[in-house]
Amino acid sequence: MEGSQPMDGEDHHMKDADRPKGLEHGAANGAGTHEASPGSEEGSFDEETDMDPDSLALEQSRRRGLLPTGVCYDVRMKMHMNADFSPGAHHPEDPRRVHEIFEAFKRTGLIYTGPEEDAARILKEVPTRYMWRIPVRMATREEICLAHSADHLAWVEKIEKLSTAELRELTKRYDQGRESLYVGAMSHTVARLSAGGAIETCKNVAGGVVKNAFAVIRPPGHHAEYDHPMGFCFFNNVPVAVRVCQKEYPETCRKVLILDWDVHHGNGVQNIFYDDPNVLYISLHVYQNGQFYPGQPPNPMTPDGGIEHCGMGMGLGRNVNIGWHDQGMGDGEYMAAFQKIVMPIAQEFNPDLVVISAGFDAADGDELGGCFVTPPCYAHMTHMLMSLADGRVAVCLEGGYNLRAISNSAVAVAKTLMGEPPPKMEVPKINKEAARMLAKVQAHQAPYWECMRQGIVDVPRTQSLGGERLHDVIRSAQRQVLQAKHNMTPLYVQRQHLYKSFENQVLVTPDLDRARKIMVIIHDPPELLAQPDAIDTSLEPHNAWLVDGVTDYIDWAVKHGFGVMDINIPGYITQEEDTDAFIPVSKERELEQQIQSLVCYLWDNYIQLYQADDLFILGRISGVVSFVNGNLRAVKSSIDEQLSAWYKENSRVFVAADHACWTDHELTRRIHKRRFGTVVRSQDVGLSKMMRAHADDAHDWILQRVRSSESGGDTTEEEEESGNMNS
Amino acid sequence: MEGSQPMDGEDHHMKDADRPKGLEHGAANGAGTHEASPGSEEGSFDEETDMDPDSLALEQSRRRGLLPTGVCYDVRMKMHMNADFSPGAHHPEDPRRVHEIFEAFKRTGLIYTGPEEDAARILKEVPTRYMWRIPVRMATREEICLAHSADHLAWVEKIEKLSTAELRELTKRYDQGRESLYVGAMSHTVARLSAGGAIETCKNVAGGVVKNAFAVIRPPGHHAEYDHPMGFCFFNNVPVAVRVCQKEYPETCRKVLILDWDVHHGNGVQNIFYDDPNVLYISLHVYQNGQFYPGQPPNPMTPDGGIEHCGMGMGLGRNVNIGWHDQGMGDGEYMAAFQKIVMPIAQEFNPDLVVISAGFDAADGDELGGCFVTPPCYAHMTHMLMSLADGRVAVCLEGGYNLRAISNSAVAVAKTLMGEPPPKMEVPKINKEAARMLAKVQAHQAPYWECMRQGIVDVPRTQSLGGERLHDVIRSAQRQVLQAKHNMTPLYVQRQHLYKSFENQVLVTPDLDRARKIMVIIHDPPELLAQPDAIDTSLEPHNAWLVDGVTDYIDWAVKHGFGVMDINIPGYITQEEDTDAFIPVSKERELEQQIQSLVCYLWDNYIQLYQADDLFILGRISGVVSFVNGNLRAVKSSIDEQLSAWYKENSRVFVAADHACWTDHELTRRIHKRRFGTVVRSQDVGLSKMMRAHADDAHDWILQRVRSSESGGDTTEEEEESGNMNS
Repeated sequence: MEGSQPMDGEDHHMKDADRPKGLEHGAANGAGTHEASPGSEEGSFDEETDMDPDSLALEQSRRRGLLPTGVCYDVRMKMHMNADFSPGAHHPEDPRRVHEIFEAFKRTGLIYTGPEEDAARILKEVPTRYMWRIPVRMATREEICLAHSADHLAWVEKIEKLSTAELRELTKRYDQGRESLYVGAMSHTVARLSAGGAIETCKNVAGGVVKNAFAVIRPPGHHAEYDHPMGFCFFNNVPVAVRVCQKEYPETCRKVLILDWDVHHGNGVQNIFYDDPNVLYISLHVYQNGQFYPGQPPNPMTPDGGIEHCGMGMGLGRNVNIGWHDQGMGDGEYMAAFQKIVMPIAQEFNPDLVVISAGFDAADGDELGGCFVTPPCYAHMTHMLMSLADGRVAVCLEGGYNLRAISNSAVAVAKTLMGEPPPKMEVPKINKEAARMLAKVQAHQAPYWECMRQGIVDVPRTQSLGGERLHDVIRSAQRQVLQAKHNMTPLYVQRQHLYKSFENQVLVTPDLDRARKIMVIIHDPPELLAQPDAIDTSLEPHNAWLVDGVTDYIDWAVKHGFGVMDINIPGYITQEEDTDAFIPVSKERELEQQIQSLVCYLWDNYIQLYQADDLFILGRISGVVSFVNGNLRAVKSSIDEQLSAWYKENSRVFVAADHACWTDHELTRRIHKRRFGTVVRSQDVGLSKMMRAHADDAHDWILQRVRSSESGGDTTEEEEESGNMNS
Repeated sequence: MEGSQPMDGEDHHMKDADRPKGLEHGAANGAGTHEASPGSEEGSFDEETDMDPDSLALEQSRRRGLLPTGVCYDVRMKMHMNADFSPGAHHPEDPRRVHEIFEAFKRTGLIYTGPEEDAARILKEVPTRYMWRIPVRMATREEICLAHSADHLAWVEKIEKLSTAELRELTKRYDQGRESLYVGAMSHTVARLSAGGAIETCKNVAGGVVKNAFAVIRPPGHHAEYDHPMGFCFFNNVPVAVRVCQKEYPETCRKVLILDWDVHHGNGVQNIFYDDPNVLYISLHVYQNGQFYPGQPPNPMTPDGGIEHCGMGMGLGRNVNIGWHDQGMGDGEYMAAFQKIVMPIAQEFNPDLVVISAGFDAADGDELGGCFVTPPCYAHMTHMLMSLADGRVAVCLEGGYNLRAISNSAVAVAKTLMGEPPPKMEVPKINKEAARMLAKVQAHQAPYWECMRQGIVDVPRTQSLGGERLHDVIRSAQRQVLQAKHNMTPLYVQRQHLYKSFENQVLVTPDLDRARKIMVIIHDPPELLAQPDAIDTSLEPHNAWLVDGVTDYIDWAVKHGFGVMDINIPGYITQEEDTDAFIPVSKERELEQQIQSLVCYLWDNYIQLYQADDLFILGRISGVVSFVNGNLRAVKSSIDEQLSAWYKENSRVFVAADHACWTDHELTRRIHKRRFGTVVRSQDVGLSKMMRAHADDAHDWILQRVRSSESGGDTTEEEEESGNMNS
């Protein structure tokens, strides 16, 4: 079982494929004979004689660098194919996938292709020059059942007994929706070979026969669940192999890291090990808020790939999901994920064996994945993982469907395994949303990993000390300033659920109800910039800055005789059960609704009852003078058809310089429609900066309009509502 | 010049040492013959025939992993020794250093030691099995002058002409203070050999003759300045070698990273390249606020090793100092520095060549360095650097004085260069001060490196938007609350320099001057915990928490009829020119003085004039009830000898559970002296937590004392001053 044997190209194997089963030919002439087995721990590389104890300690792990890299492949794995040959039935999980990768290994000289009679000698003399072939065998039933139910195994075995017509029927039933599976006459055999290949590969690495190894296997495994097949997968190869290694090497292979860089989340691996403290599963995948495959499971659970899934029971913290918000990720994002999350956690876990669930569908060129990871980046990720577990890395193929992309990526990985330095690489800038997602992963993992704790607020502990969310404090300070300056006071808001955060949110100047000109300012809380302590997140208040663009506008308005209503829209409403470090989307929606009803309440009970001749609304939410850094909102009404026209006439909407509407041709055309108002391109980016830059502009425009309405003309009340409120 | 040649052990070289000079024997029988030269770009490993264009692109860098690792050594480098043989003159830069390392390489089988007649064949057949010997030669004058002045070269050359008596005299003159240099008859020759060894090593790596290489050379170089020797160093080997490579390979070796992990700062390297955009110098060293060697230069500049030195002119950002606050650093700190600073910056720089200035005096066992870096950690750092520059890494020995530690460390590095996986390693937890220093390095480098910008406030930009430091905002909010609750008002502080930050710092209850019982509360600003955005450091106020332990105490005091004076001590005083992201130490001292005069002012003008029978001072600075998380302060007076006794009698000093005084035997004994008051060990850590936990305790104690003084007894005014104020 421990044998690995130098093999030539594929032809030799073709003959072996005729053998009945078992495939022990590798063991038969390779194993047991230590001369041929390059990696036995007491190998032939020990030429030291008298060493001092320190050097001996250093030498204890021997020179694993002199061991060869293994490769596991068998042509029979091409024989799993779709029984449905109809033209539309072509499937991305194509039998050529493994063939192409193996051919690329040969073409780039990673596998010996010279005369067979020289093979043994050359491979023995220079063991690290070529990859050593690890023979494939079928996984046993016992092995499969280490990660699957007996029922599931029986279901797969039964495929062998089906007629072609029945196979086609089965494919039609399964090859859609979340199951996404095709079957053929050989599917069971090949699935067993694929799992067996993973087992032999991991065992040769864990047992120290080879330095590291690459299993070129199919069908893939990581979607297969304990009790059902899924996503092109029958048996979950990697979990089966990991459990076999843990069983056979209980002392030296206790803790295993499974790193899954397939672009899809490995739901099966996650679920099989979800409460296992000895298997750390880290997956990098496209999540798209649960929309990307494999997405939402049938029962009412949340999608498996969400970053909030950290394992359970003894396995808490042993599941790390790095789920990208979208496709389009590339080297910058993957390198950052490795530096900030994967490697620190992996080092703290300190595994005995690393298995890479290596799909290459995040590779540049794979249309299903839509990402841009280059071969050099795969090399760098491999190189980093090789620093773990004394270099014991086993790579098992999962998905990846562009034949050229998977070959090039696999070659880059294999070369790195063989000791080739990873190629020089310009790492692109990271996508900002991706960086934010990584920060959230850190927050989710902070309870379980020391290395993730730096810079993360421990919210429950903070609450227990009577901590108060800062936005309440800041608003209270603003109230103090506005009270002292302009005698402004809070407006009483009678609401069914009067949350603490609404207490100081609406401030008004005295006698607002008698003002002739009113300015309503609707704004976000002031911008805060902060530099907390790297370790305990404590913040010296002098290392934090508050940037408030609103007060200047209020000063100006009061000076010009306006009555002012200042509405602060909190980003979060402080509640009784208040333990979130980050606000989940669901709560954001809830907040939006509450704010809408607050604004409606103010409109109904105050603003529309006032006597003012002129009413200006200044705000980000909507309104006459508007500063837009995010979404542009339309103002239209199904009742009042003139509203959009009025809005166009009576608005100044300043839009940030870097807003997509200025670069996207189609958007530029659209925003000049009436319902978006009179849109002005700002030279600046960021609300505070924009408000400062356009203060004079906005003030002049407002004064002009006041004068024009005061100097006769129509004295109709100017009013507007946000598109949001009407829709 | 391109030749590198398989060499056996040291004996062979001993004979060569007799040759006049130049040492071209390596070139003579090794270079030019491509069969023997393993690394020529058009080497003999090209067995591909028909490859598709993609694979060809992948293959462009060939298989550099099949090239050998080089080693450069020459026994003559042992011949630089101290001309002063007197017993006390033994020097840590001992000739045995290089010998021991080379012996360790042989002992661990990294260098071929078999029969000489087989050497050529074996090394050709298995080029990666042993290190290939790179012959040493003397650096030419032209080469030396690429990094040094002609005057300096002449000074070193003159050593050769001195008599032994003169050499001893010279040693006596130089071997002290910052210069720290000894000389001997062979010093010039050996210094030239050492530089020549560095040159040949770097050239063989940059030119692709070897995969990577290790130069076992001495004397070291990194302290040597452009125009003078220093710190055991005559010529600065690495800069000389780097300049030679840049000159000889202008296309392929333009950008060079010098990574200096010697425990001392490489002042010479920094200064030589300080304005050079093509050489990135990153140094990890013990800084100790400039006290550690090489420390303060003679002219009134700041110590070279400070983290604020980022290069100048075109070289801005090309100098990265990671200066530890103290000795005692180890694997945790070095791994963190690599993950957080070194590798991100190095990847963004994307060098063509990496040179490690490899002192091993941060190694566990080196008494001069006092750090604890283990051989596995050196292996991991080497492994990470090998991911850069297509693996072109040249290691040049610098310092390191424990013979066993340097040998073991060098073997770990050499094995890693040869492709050995770095050993498994438990990474210890990082020292908190070290982590804070890394965060400060990030802030200093943020203007120059995209990867350093995440999470760093751009202070000048923030100021330009009218940003206000948050502590003023928070104090304003506190004032609002205390005004509403207890009618407290700010006390007018007439000061020559009335800074904005002092405006709201002192709040008092009405009629304080007539109160019978007064509580003076001196406290820091409330604790803030924050989670800013990972990218732009903006902080949603609802993701920040304010933890204030003081208000409860005020509520309690008012309820019990105390008059209250609440003094908030800001951590920073907002000033006109206000551009610091982190507050430098000099400003902290200034602040401390201002606070002292504020407290004195309050004492003189208010507190001592009040009529109260009982005066309690509650504070962190000093006083009757004190919560100590940081330094314990003594209260004593040179005038009033009874003060310490009074303090012991009339104080409760709660000290954090993790304070050193509880574990350090000597400290425990000392803190029970009178001048530290009555010290109580808290079960908690952190001021807010402690104040909460001991509230009842403190309240009871205060009430007891009020009752005891009210119920007759002595009604003497209880007063105290801090040791700080008196000294």
